[in-house]
Amino acid sequence: MDWDQLWLDVNVATMDPQQPGEFGEITDAALAVKDGKIAWIGPKSELPEFDPFLTPVIQGKGQWLTPGLIDCHTHLIFAGSRAHEFEARLKGGSYEEIARAGGGILSTVKATREASEEDLFHLGRQRMNALLNEGVTHVEIKSGYGLDMDTEEKMLKLARYLGEVHPIDVSTTFLGAHAIPKEYAGRNQEYVDFVCQTVLPKLAEQGLVDAVDVFCETIGFDLKQTEQVFNAAKQFDLPVKLHAEQLSNMGGSALAAKHQALSVDHIECLDEDGVKAIKDSGTVAVLLPGAFYFLKETRKPPVDLLRKHGVPMAVASDFNPGSSPLCSALLMLNLSCTLFGLTPAEALAGITRHSAAALGLDKRVGQLKVGMDADIAQWQIGHPVELAWQYGQRPCVAVYKQGNSVRLP
Amino acid sequence: MDWDQLWLDVNVATMDPQQPGEFGEITDAALAVKDGKIAWIGPKSELPEFDPFLTPVIQGKGQWLTPGLIDCHTHLIFAGSRAHEFEARLKGGSYEEIARAGGGILSTVKATREASEEDLFHLGRQRMNALLNEGVTHVEIKSGYGLDMDTEEKMLKLARYLGEVHPIDVSTTFLGAHAIPKEYAGRNQEYVDFVCQTVLPKLAEQGLVDAVDVFCETIGFDLKQTEQVFNAAKQFDLPVKLHAEQLSNMGGSALAAKHQALSVDHIECLDEDGVKAIKDSGTVAVLLPGAFYFLKETRKPPVDLLRKHGVPMAVASDFNPGSSPLCSALLMLNLSCTLFGLTPAEALAGITRHSAAALGLDKRVGQLKVGMDADIAQWQIGHPVELAWQYGQRPCVAVYKQGNSVRLP
Ligand SMILES: [Zn+2]
Ligand SMILES: [Zn+2]
Repeated sequence: MDWDQLWLDVNVATMDPQQPGEFGEITDAALAVKDGKIAWIGPKSELPEFDPFLTPVIQGKGQWLTPGLIDCHTHLIFAGSRAHEFEARLKGGSYEEIARAGGGILSTVKATREASEEDLFHLGRQRMNALLNEGVTHVEIKSGYGLDMDTEEKMLKLARYLGEVHPIDVSTTFLGAHAIPKEYAGRNQEYVDFVCQTVLPKLAEQGLVDAVDVFCETIGFDLKQTEQVFNAAKQFDLPVKLHAEQLSNMGGSALAAKHQALSVDHIECLDEDGVKAIKDSGTVAVLLPGAFYFLKETRKPPVDLLRKHGVPMAVASDFNPGSSPLCSALLMLNLSCTLFGLTPAEALAGITRHSAAALGLDKRVGQLKVGMDADIAQWQIGHPVELAWQYGQRPCVAVYKQGNSVRLP
Repeated sequence: MDWDQLWLDVNVATMDPQQPGEFGEITDAALAVKDGKIAWIGPKSELPEFDPFLTPVIQGKGQWLTPGLIDCHTHLIFAGSRAHEFEARLKGGSYEEIARAGGGILSTVKATREASEEDLFHLGRQRMNALLNEGVTHVEIKSGYGLDMDTEEKMLKLARYLGEVHPIDVSTTFLGAHAIPKEYAGRNQEYVDFVCQTVLPKLAEQGLVDAVDVFCETIGFDLKQTEQVFNAAKQFDLPVKLHAEQLSNMGGSALAAKHQALSVDHIECLDEDGVKAIKDSGTVAVLLPGAFYFLKETRKPPVDLLRKHGVPMAVASDFNPGSSPLCSALLMLNLSCTLFGLTPAEALAGITRHSAAALGLDKRVGQLKVGMDADIAQWQIGHPVELAWQYGQRPCVAVYKQGNSVRLP
């Protein structure tokens, strides 16, 4: 066989549901890469003959391989700090007082508008470096801290650029409908029209948008406005996603299902009808335990109902300065188990196979099986359950993108 | 002036209560080190004249200095994994089923007894490396996974050795009264006698013990047994600490106060009488938010009462495989604020000045002031509040022990 790379003496959590075991695990395995794709995977005992002089071999020393982690919901390009807002809340400040003192999402919008591209680049790269060290190979980045033409464009161009120059791949999501900017205060519908008729077309035509998202909530955009944005997305053949049912059950998920959304995200307040709707549309339920923890929410997403109806559950960081200032994929594994009761295998599937589906990439990444991209994380662990159990010890020892070793920063 | 090291263009969170501000902050500061101690600290404008050719200068570029973090409660020497126990609980397994399947603390005891010194050394060093990368310069390590003469000795010798060869300093705590080993099942009092009359004397005489701790709980040791251990400690002039009031209010803290304990740790169920007792004895209240989070406890430590009576509150990781598999000091800052309502300044004081006091080291470390050891963490942050707010971005850029730069692993 003529391979570019071969792992021997490894254990593999393939996350392939066609393999046995919750993790699709193959112990004492071999895995071969050709042209950036997985060319062979299976028990080492069944490995075809190969020319040891022509095949570069990595001796895995019993370490584990998993698919590279995929963080399918982040807002990781932003400027400014919300630390003092966090402090003010801990000292008993009300949301109104904090908003008056310049806190809240619009403070991040202001800082992001004012930030130079270079500063935003360095901030974004530093955050992606932290994720890369945790075995992340793909990240979604949303716009939505610009809320004007120039800054939304600046954010998405930067997200694309980071995807090119950083080892982690990037999916971009346009979230113009994240909040009402202050220059549109009291003119919400005009802002939605601006987003749909001006901003999205210009960004989509430049190929800057992989998906379109809306913050559908009593404190965000209503169902009618959400559908308006979805319809605008359709004109550019862009798939949609939705921040839905975080604080109240507005029926956003059902609407998202009607539009074949890739994912509905948060969904703490989703009911069984909503669960059935997203099941029928093949929409992924994205759980965001970081925001649940940080906002001290008490209502958990309906994990039992999602299981009952066989809805795929993804897990993501929602990394953002206001509600989840937690730049860590591995922490989300522990949080989703401890707070939401996922099993470790569900959590790992949630940040590999199902998060790939939440980005429409499940044919290419998220599992270790023949034909998939060789995006691989290598771990110094005894069993993949440990990735969800223990935290802080930096178990990721190597990352490979399309079979090539990536230098960890 | 004749200094070994000088920082210029830094901001300093001194954590010295005699400085103004919650963090005792000095902006645009200078800090000088001589013979491993802080020799001068203050606004740069007041810096005495010095010879720039003789004084090595670090240009801080506006970064922040804090005291090196001090994790005053860990069980970081252990072997074996409890990941499958975590998984079994998430799948609904009862404690009994898990214990029958070989889980629980005694599974860690078994693995630690069987582990070679070399394996335990590598595990301990890896964990300390993770902490060092977060700016930790001092850690407490408890025994208590041996519960026999040889393994308790092995653990404390290893803790001492790690303190010598690793940049992080180590305080050792003897926790023979952590659980009843299976060979003493049903003979609890005999085990306590063995701990007091055989194990502690042999370890104390070798200088392996800096403090003595007991797990005082309905599922641990009772008040009478706790006092017996405390009295044994007194024979060797050793200070005491106590795991107290975690699951029930047994009066352990009042007993600890009577024995001038350095600290009482956990204290979720401590009442106002207990708070007053530890106030009078100068005992530090050690909050362990990692275990609270991981065990999904609902009763929080009485932070308001501790504030009202002016009891110093320390914050520590309680890193251990059963109830807090979280090897991170910085995560504890966020957890203690988010879950217990500490302010960021209280959290940082809790892992510097007050955790030093919980180890009896507050004359030497935990603040940046003249005469104290120059154990310093340097941070790429805009303000120390950010250390508690945002997590995952690895803000620590350098660590100094007694003024010497430490290579981050
Ligand atoms: Zn979000
Ligand atoms: Zn403990």
